[in-house]
Amino acid sequence: MRRLHNFSAGPCTLPLEVLETAQRELVDYHGAGMSLLEMSHRTPPVEGVRDAAEAALRRLLGLGEHHHVAFVAGGATFQFAMLAMNFLTNGRLGDYTHSGAWAKKAIADGRKIGRVNVVWDGTPDDYMTLPDPASVSSSAGSQFLHLTSNETIGGVQWKSFPACEAPLVADMSSDFLSRPVPLERFGLIYAGAQKNIGPAGVTVVILTDDMLAACDGDLPGYLNYGGHVQNRSMLNTPPVFQIYMVKLVLEWLEARGGLAWAEQAAAERSGILYGVLGGSDGFYRCPVDERYRSTMNVVFRLPSEELEKRFVAEAEAAGLSGLKGHRSVGGIRASIYNAMPVAGVEALAGFMSDFRDRNG
Amino acid sequence: MRRLHNFSAGPCTLPLEVLETAQRELVDYHGAGMSLLEMSHRTPPVEGVRDAAEAALRRLLGLGEHHHVAFVAGGATFQFAMLAMNFLTNGRLGDYTHSGAWAKKAIADGRKIGRVNVVWDGTPDDYMTLPDPASVSSSAGSQFLHLTSNETIGGVQWKSFPACEAPLVADMSSDFLSRPVPLERFGLIYAGAQKNIGPAGVTVVILTDDMLAACDGDLPGYLNYGGHVQNRSMLNTPPVFQIYMVKLVLEWLEARGGLAWAEQAAAERSGILYGVLGGSDGFYRCPVDERYRSTMNVVFRLPSEELEKRFVAEAEAAGLSGLKGHRSVGGIRASIYNAMPVAGVEALAGFMSDFRDRNG
Repeated sequence: MRRLHNFSAGPCTLPLEVLETAQRELVDYHGAGMSLLEMSHRTPPVEGVRDAAEAALRRLLGLGEHHHVAFVAGGATFQFAMLAMNFLTNGRLGDYTHSGAWAKKAIADGRKIGRVNVVWDGTPDDYMTLPDPASVSSSAGSQFLHLTSNETIGGVQWKSFPACEAPLVADMSSDFLSRPVPLERFGLIYAGAQKNIGPAGVTVVILTDDMLAACDGDLPGYLNYGGHVQNRSMLNTPPVFQIYMVKLVLEWLEARGGLAWAEQAAAERSGILYGVLGGSDGFYRCPVDERYRSTMNVVFRLPSEELEKRFVAEAEAAGLSGLKGHRSVGGIRASIYNAMPVAGVEALAGFMSDFRDRNG
Repeated sequence: MRRLHNFSAGPCTLPLEVLETAQRELVDYHGAGMSLLEMSHRTPPVEGVRDAAEAALRRLLGLGEHHHVAFVAGGATFQFAMLAMNFLTNGRLGDYTHSGAWAKKAIADGRKIGRVNVVWDGTPDDYMTLPDPASVSSSAGSQFLHLTSNETIGGVQWKSFPACEAPLVADMSSDFLSRPVPLERFGLIYAGAQKNIGPAGVTVVILTDDMLAACDGDLPGYLNYGGHVQNRSMLNTPPVFQIYMVKLVLEWLEARGGLAWAEQAAAERSGILYGVLGGSDGFYRCPVDERYRSTMNVVFRLPSEELEKRFVAEAEAAGLSGLKGHRSVGGIRASIYNAMPVAGVEALAGFMSDFRDRNG
């Protein structure tokens, strides 16, 4: 097999060892005489996978007894709705920061259910920067202050976080477990798996005792955070395959050195690419404010759309896949999550230098 | 590998060929240089899988242009909420039949959102029977009449369906694609995958033009049926692995002969087991009204709980797995979905006869 370097924004590259383990175990799980996919979720092997996934997550983040974990189906898009329904019903207020495409969706769903205050709006700058966290504060009576820790499309990333009155709620889908975070400021964190921790189809939700106590208790069953937490992600049949894959990826991450390793590796990978951009005499141009450039999604432009098209096509032919920017903004985007080997980034950097030499 | 006969109620046995195909293709999908799990959902291979799954479903059921299909994450439990939110907001009314554990959950969620009329209630008979469909009618102004086509726990199954004013809405999770259904009476059908069509983590929703037009248009994004339909199940990143598995299972079903084959095979499998029960001189006792006995979940009791315990343990040792009844009702349950080979049922029947000889 010739394995491509996959720079897709998500779903995205997974650790090859994890895929190989999943392949080996798929038909007959640990000699059980059946696939894990065929087992009742109320059996020790499936409960064991769930327990191991949660335990690895707790070790990686250092979660204590006042933090609760749930694996919920439906992606971050479903969390936009679930969050609003749990905390903004009955006229309650939520603060949101508007940092780009994903924040916008979270805000829209908040407005469908409750009162929303946009405390910072990146629209005037085309979402190419973020506020100084020290300048961000929450409104009186707000249930939370929502932020999108990394905007996958825009390529902007919060480097540190506000310390405000209301608990922070963060959509960490695209940089989850790529660095340590000041957990004590966050009331709720959610992250779709399909960037740093597994395939699409499950979302990790972490929330505190206080947030759990503030949930609307009168929602239909599946919409209640409380039900998922109390039933330890088995309120109903969960997406077992994804939880299993998350377990494998988290264990892979731990073996590498956890969040400290992830942070260092992300800095190395993104440093290589931003270095190429900076040293290209303006051939490659990153539109993002230098202070908030993402370590996960490196976005850049070429001198013309014509050249961008050629760049993507030639890169693909050279085994560098998924580099086309999001359809809403164009340009190039290299997504370099935890599972992207440095060798992949080096191959891309080499291609970029060569492409510039030929076209600059 | 020694493959067990798996009588689990769901997740449950899958066709071995499907598991083997998935295993073969898991790391490098059709020579693409990456796994299907690593591909952006906006790429031809993933869109192709979605298209093929939907096309197979349309062929199997004979769906035309006035029927819409969506693959939604979250299971039937999420559909209880989504259904109520789309059709019962603003004081609207829904009719429900109460046939057991699953119907009860659907009703509870309906009541959280709108007005609910329980038009038939099986509580007095402990959910061991169903109404004559001809006797069931809908209330004036009702948005739908909801039924659970097969109760996985109770083992009761609608053999034919009401023809009433309101469109039928059915939770078909546990007998979906096991027989032809009079499609023209149904406004909406939903089915969690993890019985007849794949692993847990995706739900198929089929709805008509009329139902789509009646949806509440003011819900948060993920909760709108319309958004899922308009985006052809890619409103957000869908559970790609499950849609892929559904595709493989549906193609497997088509190759066997589709719904006509499924119906005949279900009759054969369940006929063997009900035959053993009936011929056991009362040693095995099926509590379900003969007219409504499920072809998917055969439930029965033994003379004592002590014997039931021994039955389950000895069956397990004989390679017959997952026979313990649901914790809420006890007894024995043999779930025999589409992918259960007749040989599995014959092995169980042989064990049952032998067990009775030794303990009767």
